[in-house]
Amino acid sequence: MSSPYPSMIDDLRRQFLDRLAATFSDREPRGLYAPIDYILDLGGKRVRPLVALLAARMFGDEDLNKSMPVALAVEVFHNFTLLHDDIMDDSPLRRGQMTVHEKWDINTGILSGDLMLIQAYQYLCECPNKAALPEMLCTFNRVATGVCEGQQYDVDFEARQDVTIGEYLKMIELKTAVLLGGALELGALAAGAKKEDADHLYAFGRLTGLAFQLQDDLLDTFGDSKVTGKRTGNDIIRNKKTFLFLKALELLGKEDKDELNAWFADSPADPANKVIRVTDMMARAGIPQAVAELRDQYQADAYAHLDAAGGDPGVKAVLRALAESLLQRES
Amino acid sequence: MSSPYPSMIDDLRRQFLDRLAATFSDREPRGLYAPIDYILDLGGKRVRPLVALLAARMFGDEDLNKSMPVALAVEVFHNFTLLHDDIMDDSPLRRGQMTVHEKWDINTGILSGDLMLIQAYQYLCECPNKAALPEMLCTFNRVATGVCEGQQYDVDFEARQDVTIGEYLKMIELKTAVLLGGALELGALAAGAKKEDADHLYAFGRLTGLAFQLQDDLLDTFGDSKVTGKRTGNDIIRNKKTFLFLKALELLGKEDKDELNAWFADSPADPANKVIRVTDMMARAGIPQAVAELRDQYQADAYAHLDAAGGDPGVKAVLRALAESLLQRES
Repeated sequence: MSSPYPSMIDDLRRQFLDRLAATFSDREPRGLYAPIDYILDLGGKRVRPLVALLAARMFGDEDLNKSMPVALAVEVFHNFTLLHDDIMDDSPLRRGQMTVHEKWDINTGILSGDLMLIQAYQYLCECPNKAALPEMLCTFNRVATGVCEGQQYDVDFEARQDVTIGEYLKMIELKTAVLLGGALELGALAAGAKKEDADHLYAFGRLTGLAFQLQDDLLDTFGDSKVTGKRTGNDIIRNKKTFLFLKALELLGKEDKDELNAWFADSPADPANKVIRVTDMMARAGIPQAVAELRDQYQADAYAHLDAAGGDPGVKAVLRALAESLLQRES
Repeated sequence: MSSPYPSMIDDLRRQFLDRLAATFSDREPRGLYAPIDYILDLGGKRVRPLVALLAARMFGDEDLNKSMPVALAVEVFHNFTLLHDDIMDDSPLRRGQMTVHEKWDINTGILSGDLMLIQAYQYLCECPNKAALPEMLCTFNRVATGVCEGQQYDVDFEARQDVTIGEYLKMIELKTAVLLGGALELGALAAGAKKEDADHLYAFGRLTGLAFQLQDDLLDTFGDSKVTGKRTGNDIIRNKKTFLFLKALELLGKEDKDELNAWFADSPADPANKVIRVTDMMARAGIPQAVAELRDQYQADAYAHLDAAGGDPGVKAVLRALAESLLQRES
């Protein structure tokens, strides 16, 4: 991590993990609570709670008392979406471990997930800044609604052949970016920040989330698996209509376009040749450059919003460093 | 309905249904919102929103402006639990119509249900009485958590042979009664009632819910299907360990007890003889009298809490009449 203040990020992460571990209990019925402790203990970068805490500290919540419940709320909400998404996608693994519905069963996954969503709201309720609660509740509802809508669009797009680039960008905004923005907005509101400053932080998070998702899509096809740790070409193998695919359709000539559509209508048992051919077509169409350009535009817009927000400049620099580390190139 | 003011109940139901219908929209994505409109339009007695509105009117919310969002919140939450429970129980029908996961699919049922839970919180957010919002949010979370715990206990009890009467009563309290109590408490809080009065209404609703569930269990075995409209003996056929079964085990001699346990370990293709034998054993054990006694005790305790609550006596009488109609005997 290239942060100028890595110690602050490490310190906040440690404090958050301590607080998270303190939520684990022997509460009954175990069939309901054990899966919640399990998924929350699987790990992850904890980016959303970290940015919520940083946003709050920017606006004076030095000891994190006002914002720690918000950090828990966004992390529990995020893991609720993972739990239910894993059921819907029938995914066997999450962070290298069994998913909840694999380790228990689907009904357990549904009900424990439902309770996690309720727990997220319970953490909001525990915020000491009661004056901000109505605004925070509305923000949380808006963000949570967006995440559900994004998931539905993602499902809908699998069956559609006419998804536009605008629709795809709206989908990833809802599914991924609004929660990062929401975490920042909620952290700022919990600390008592003005609505205008909280709105700038929301926009910073939303645009950073979009840049991050584009970078993630780019690395899936053009990344080095030794660096990313993931198999390259996954999205191509799964015929996923990412920005790369949609932009390639826009930029390629008719013959290449027909070939690309043909590859994406097929799921060969050995996908090696498909990955090579599609990657090559995308490279010839200038996709890496097109993705990088849009990503950098989002990133620049994100930093403009961060600059426009008030708050402690030192903490702001740490937040920027954290965003940089999320968006870092392979080099 | 034997209400002294049936016109007020009918009027409130009509106003609620008008407001509910106004929530139906063309909002996108349809795959997410259409199932929500569908389940909310299936009907039902709308008891929870009605008691919320009556509780609020008891404390001065004459035009229902303060409490209508709460009425929507509890009805949408209740239908969220029905939607997810139907998936977990693999039920094909709900109110005589296809369940959401049958009409669409399980993934749609999960995601639309999730959004309904979020919408319930969104309605809370729309309550004009912002001063009461922190208390209302905590109440809603407490109730929603209880409902999830009750559902898990219900699942757990199916696999257990050692469920006690106390555990069963706790389970039906969580699964059914706390939401009725919560609807009343939230209605009162939305109207600006004192916490003490809201607590009395919660207790009234909780105890009425327990009495209602016992009455429901009683009618399932000893009711007249021509009056109830349901097949008599359903719980016996499904080996459901209700209060009737657990109390019978307590009251019967060893030989009868062994026979009852044997019947409940079996699922004969033609259950007619099983239903006759088990019903007969329960009748001999004095189960109808035991259930009626406990039901009447809950009901009396419920009315004591209603009497102890402040508020408009005329509206209180309507609320009592509504409870009477829920608990009415077949005669």
